[in-house]
Amino acid sequence: MNVVDTTHLLEGHAAIPLPDPGIMQANVFHSPGRYGLASKPIPRAAPGEAIIRVHMTTICGTDIHIVKGEYPVAEGLTIGHEAVGTIHELGEGVTGYRIGQRVLVGAITPCGQCMDCLGGHAAQCGGALGGWRLGNTQDGAQAEFMRVPFAQANLAPVPDTLSNEQVILLADIASTGFSAAESGDIQLGDNVAIFGQGPIGLCATLGAKLMGAARIFVVDKNIFRLETARQFGATDTLLATGDPVKTIRDATGGAGVDVSIEALGIQETFENALAVVKPGGTLSSVGVYSHNLSVELRDFGAGIADKKIVTTLCPGGKERMTRLMRLVEAGRIDLTSLLTHRFHLDEIHDAYTLFAGQKDNVLKVAILVP
Amino acid sequence: MNVVDTTHLLEGHAAIPLPDPGIMQANVFHSPGRYGLASKPIPRAAPGEAIIRVHMTTICGTDIHIVKGEYPVAEGLTIGHEAVGTIHELGEGVTGYRIGQRVLVGAITPCGQCMDCLGGHAAQCGGALGGWRLGNTQDGAQAEFMRVPFAQANLAPVPDTLSNEQVILLADIASTGFSAAESGDIQLGDNVAIFGQGPIGLCATLGAKLMGAARIFVVDKNIFRLETARQFGATDTLLATGDPVKTIRDATGGAGVDVSIEALGIQETFENALAVVKPGGTLSSVGVYSHNLSVELRDFGAGIADKKIVTTLCPGGKERMTRLMRLVEAGRIDLTSLLTHRFHLDEIHDAYTLFAGQKDNVLKVAILVP
Amino acid sequence: MNVVDTTHLLEGHAAIPLPDPGIMQANVFHSPGRYGLASKPIPRAAPGEAIIRVHMTTICGTDIHIVKGEYPVAEGLTIGHEAVGTIHELGEGVTGYRIGQRVLVGAITPCGQCMDCLGGHAAQCGGALGGWRLGNTQDGAQAEFMRVPFAQANLAPVPDTLSNEQVILLADIASTGFSAAESGDIQLGDNVAIFGQGPIGLCATLGAKLMGAARIFVVDKNIFRLETARQFGATDTLLATGDPVKTIRDATGGAGVDVSIEALGIQETFENALAVVKPGGTLSSVGVYSHNLSVELRDFGAGIADKKIVTTLCPGGKERMTRLMRLVEAGRIDLTSLLTHRFHLDEIHDAYTLFAGQKDNVLKVAILVP
Amino acid sequence: MNVVDTTHLLEGHAAIPLPDPGIMQANVFHSPGRYGLASKPIPRAAPGEAIIRVHMTTICGTDIHIVKGEYPVAEGLTIGHEAVGTIHELGEGVTGYRIGQRVLVGAITPCGQCMDCLGGHAAQCGGALGGWRLGNTQDGAQAEFMRVPFAQANLAPVPDTLSNEQVILLADIASTGFSAAESGDIQLGDNVAIFGQGPIGLCATLGAKLMGAARIFVVDKNIFRLETARQFGATDTLLATGDPVKTIRDATGGAGVDVSIEALGIQETFENALAVVKPGGTLSSVGVYSHNLSVELRDFGAGIADKKIVTTLCPGGKERMTRLMRLVEAGRIDLTSLLTHRFHLDEIHDAYTLFAGQKDNVLKVAILVP
Repeated sequence: MNVVDTTHLLEGHAAIPLPDPGIMQANVFHSPGRYGLASKPIPRAAPGEAIIRVHMTTICGTDIHIVKGEYPVAEGLTIGHEAVGTIHELGEGVTGYRIGQRVLVGAITPCGQCMDCLGGHAAQCGGALGGWRLGNTQDGAQAEFMRVPFAQANLAPVPDTLSNEQVILLADIASTGFSAAESGDIQLGDNVAIFGQGPIGLCATLGAKLMGAARIFVVDKNIFRLETARQFGATDTLLATGDPVKTIRDATGGAGVDVSIEALGIQETFENALAVVKPGGTLSSVGVYSHNLSVELRDFGAGIADKKIVTTLCPGGKERMTRLMRLVEAGRIDLTSLLTHRFHLDEIHDAYTLFAGQKDNVLKVAILVP
Repeated sequence: MNVVDTTHLLEGHAAIPLPDPGIMQANVFHSPGRYGLASKPIPRAAPGEAIIRVHMTTICGTDIHIVKGEYPVAEGLTIGHEAVGTIHELGEGVTGYRIGQRVLVGAITPCGQCMDCLGGHAAQCGGALGGWRLGNTQDGAQAEFMRVPFAQANLAPVPDTLSNEQVILLADIASTGFSAAESGDIQLGDNVAIFGQGPIGLCATLGAKLMGAARIFVVDKNIFRLETARQFGATDTLLATGDPVKTIRDATGGAGVDVSIEALGIQETFENALAVVKPGGTLSSVGVYSHNLSVELRDFGAGIADKKIVTTLCPGGKERMTRLMRLVEAGRIDLTSLLTHRFHLDEIHDAYTLFAGQKDNVLKVAILVP
Repeated sequence: MNVVDTTHLLEGHAAIPLPDPGIMQANVFHSPGRYGLASKPIPRAAPGEAIIRVHMTTICGTDIHIVKGEYPVAEGLTIGHEAVGTIHELGEGVTGYRIGQRVLVGAITPCGQCMDCLGGHAAQCGGALGGWRLGNTQDGAQAEFMRVPFAQANLAPVPDTLSNEQVILLADIASTGFSAAESGDIQLGDNVAIFGQGPIGLCATLGAKLMGAARIFVVDKNIFRLETARQFGATDTLLATGDPVKTIRDATGGAGVDVSIEALGIQETFENALAVVKPGGTLSSVGVYSHNLSVELRDFGAGIADKKIVTTLCPGGKERMTRLMRLVEAGRIDLTSLLTHRFHLDEIHDAYTLFAGQKDNVLKVAILVP
Repeated sequence: MNVVDTTHLLEGHAAIPLPDPGIMQANVFHSPGRYGLASKPIPRAAPGEAIIRVHMTTICGTDIHIVKGEYPVAEGLTIGHEAVGTIHELGEGVTGYRIGQRVLVGAITPCGQCMDCLGGHAAQCGGALGGWRLGNTQDGAQAEFMRVPFAQANLAPVPDTLSNEQVILLADIASTGFSAAESGDIQLGDNVAIFGQGPIGLCATLGAKLMGAARIFVVDKNIFRLETARQFGATDTLLATGDPVKTIRDATGGAGVDVSIEALGIQETFENALAVVKPGGTLSSVGVYSHNLSVELRDFGAGIADKKIVTTLCPGGKERMTRLMRLVEAGRIDLTSLLTHRFHLDEIHDAYTLFAGQKDNVLKVAILVP
């Protein structure tokens, strides 16, 4: 690897044009089931873009779908959409940043200037799901360097007081999990049920607590995750193998919860989440469904009567990441316990194997980039 | 019929106790398929209740389900939940009204004092659907006299400037139809699609116009209803037998509408309504479904991603009715064209036959009570 | 005192008519500066009302204004609007409760059935400030027994697991303080400033924390209150005698806070609260102002441009009290540290003297009723 | 004038670099009281910018403040912030447009990518009022050509079916006036009062109608404007010289209106607007105040209790302009009657004199640019 030290360059200026920017390592999708490190040229920043030297990245459940071939991406694409790093190059027109500055990179990278963004739907930037580009429609974060589009909107400076591990999960996991609680419009004293306590579900639990929920029921089949959920704010932990719907109904005097959150993406949890929400309440879903859903209508339409079903993608943009970092700085949240395992970039295969296999009580893995 | 003239009584006082309040005619459910006028004692007002002398009532689609036996009610129940009449008797504690005063009676009669009502879910008063009592769990409006529970909250004085026909449809049809638009949270300049242009769908169309929608696409299989929809604010009328989803998508440059409204309650319209709403948009449903719904998820969860599905029952209470009457008074809305046919109470069988058969371009029927 | 034991009576039934309900002690307003215990007949419940045997009450800042003659009430009125007690008598039509049941009584007692209540403005029930009746327009809570209007809507059963001290402050202080945060519409990660850390200000601080604020700046002139504020969620405590506006602006990089809360009711704090809120932000005020306010407009209208000023009275009703009790049950909040002093009803003069004088670091006093 | 015809150029490409882009006429501020046409070089588009050939512009009340020296701008600045024109040059990175395309230019030109924009406060882009650049901090619209910053976000293509006159007022006047109604959160059937019926006040009236208000009271001292207000939706027109507060209170049975709008910016109208809004209601202000305001608190804080005061600047961005154009296309609004007078750019002095003098029932003037 042959990277010129550019940290002496002035704020807002592009790196001095390099005759040869050099070669880097990146985790690349080849074909369903085949992926791994490959050499690629270090990218250059076009106007409005930035090149980030990645220091830490992670693996998302979506990445597992990608390497399995269940979510289609181009052959040769660099995978990954979560990163903390330092600014290596700033394209023309990107201002207010400086080379060498540490930043959290947005998982969703909205442009801020299209009809969707200006209309308040940044995640849908430029058309359906257009807001998700990194590791999807352009090279992503599991690499030594990454190119960030619309850099002005999508780089959030990390305060010196916060470590990479303290912020890496804010870009996607926490933002998505919290948005489940926010879209549910949880009010002070609401009772809430959350189905699925993977990383996003755990963040939804934390989000429900942050928004002032009273009783927080969580459901999962994994006892370790239920125990973790207690630290994230759960007041009642229920095994999915029991009858969580009955338990929650009984515990709420038959009324059901004000808000239920679905964080898994399967028919069973959707159904249960809808069954436990009281009339007038909201089912907020951040699960990603692979099959059609059937919505139960018990008797004559009363099944969904006066209920809301809200789905949300990860809110993007540096303002969002900045306000979540404020919560870490203020000591209100700490997500580091979700990083159960650490790997180096050249151990990426081991990292995927562990994470995909859900072994060893893994929640999230940190990938350290040299 | 032997009714004492009580109009000389003072405001807020109960009628003088009658040794025999007399006998009245009421449209009664006997058994599936069997219903009709029967004699019943004129009811008396317990504390908090009122007795209304009915001047005009109407038939709702739900009433058709009741007489067919598709929605279960007790044998002998008086059907109907919409009425304009004059106050005949006021129970103890009901204040601010006077005997003889003309009022619009709420279709939903929330108590205002239970956990559901105080929590903002009046339609669910006292438990699931508890807010709907008249013609459901207690004798209703298709009668010469009716007893109104929680009268303090559910009688809206009708201004002298408004006729019975101008207000009768506000209690249920308009309130429900408008709430479809309100729950969809239509913003100024939104494009909206509405599936089903029966009376509630037409009121949803009017509601979309009232809330400042730009283009309003409406879909129905009935040409007469589509023509009527134009008068209620539709800008584009589409036959359900065409390909309304494609037409609406094309007309919006592929984007889809901001809000779509389902006002029929079948799988096809639900599916179409979901298909035409853009990511980030809302599907607002006031249709009453008889079967389970299947929710299409096109590719990997994107089917409902970032969309909202909201269901709403008729908002109740005199404040709601009063503000809708203000719209009539201000000349903003006129629903009288929906009253396509008129019958007397003793022609109730003819009225049901016409309305159930959807013949003669019937939209709503007015039932005049002598 | 001569009170018949009625706890054996059946749920929902009125107490057996008493030839003489007996005499009780009550704290009565005589004339400006003159107040104290007096004998009064134990009240009886009319339809829709309840009689509560008071076990614990407290003194509110408003009560101080009343005894000083600054807020006008009728001579002979029993003061006080906060109480926990047991149900002694239930008027006709009040259902779902039982004699002897322990309840938290609403400070504001909305009827739930008037235009204001049905329109979502319960605190304004029946016209301006009509929702506040107890200790204002009818006898209140500083007595052995109290009569509660619209009892169906305003009695919240207290779970056996909660003590009187754990719930007494929820009816007014906490509900009002939390509503300051709620009306400010605090979002996850917002920076918030709160001016005034009396009991309501402290509850606003707790409310801001409950809603997910990041940095919470609090301002007061009293060091003890600032220390207490840390326990309630404050991250930064500022003496009012410094330059809190400059400090807050500097700490937020010049931007100002997203939401500021005014909890004192004087020109200076209003001015400062408006000065530190960023454009697009909200000033939420629960202070009660005795004089006209002047709103500073720095340069050509930009002073309040794009800002919101929201004022809120205490939200009422049993649903509100119940959901706040849920927060106590779930271990999310604990207000008992606000009860710095305890008195018996016959020490009411000492209690007022201490509370009015703001001596001995008093925050709130609990008045125990035998 | 020496302008190269560039309409043959391909979409999204910059004009061929001109050795000399030529000279144009622009209305320039010299010093307080001194302004007028001057020759300036035709501007060139930097990356992200566009050059618009102006076809129609107008004069805003703010421009009058500028030429009088009451609002400070740099000497030599081109005034004006409203324009319809065709695209003359597109800077690098501006995509989806073509040279020669007719567009409405935003009055406020938010970048879409800063903390304010991403946080939902586009009008405050880049710091207080930073969103307003044209004719404020950079050359504006009263010229043959204008340079538009953040062009991607701020150019809204005009459908062929709409004329320049049909859209010119949407960028500022209508957007601001409608936002007064939107920020007031007008609900179906609300009663509304609007103080000031200048162009923005008239658009607020239209906005109130569009959002479904029932009774709309408007107040002005000018009879012609009151008459015009009727066409824009007013149901009750009141002379400011009468006692509009009393009239509105009486007409609403003493209750006051749900929402009142202040569209003038003086103490008297602010005071009246606050006085007529009912407890629980909202005062929405879009007036620009030159002096401090005094807020009346009638008795012990009840003056503003439970009321909201909301201030709003013009919402910006092409999405906003596009949805307002949809309302014109759908036939829901027609603002052309506000354009009472027409001038050519070389008559700019006459236009200012008429508009500043408020003579001849002028509302808005159209400035045609050759």
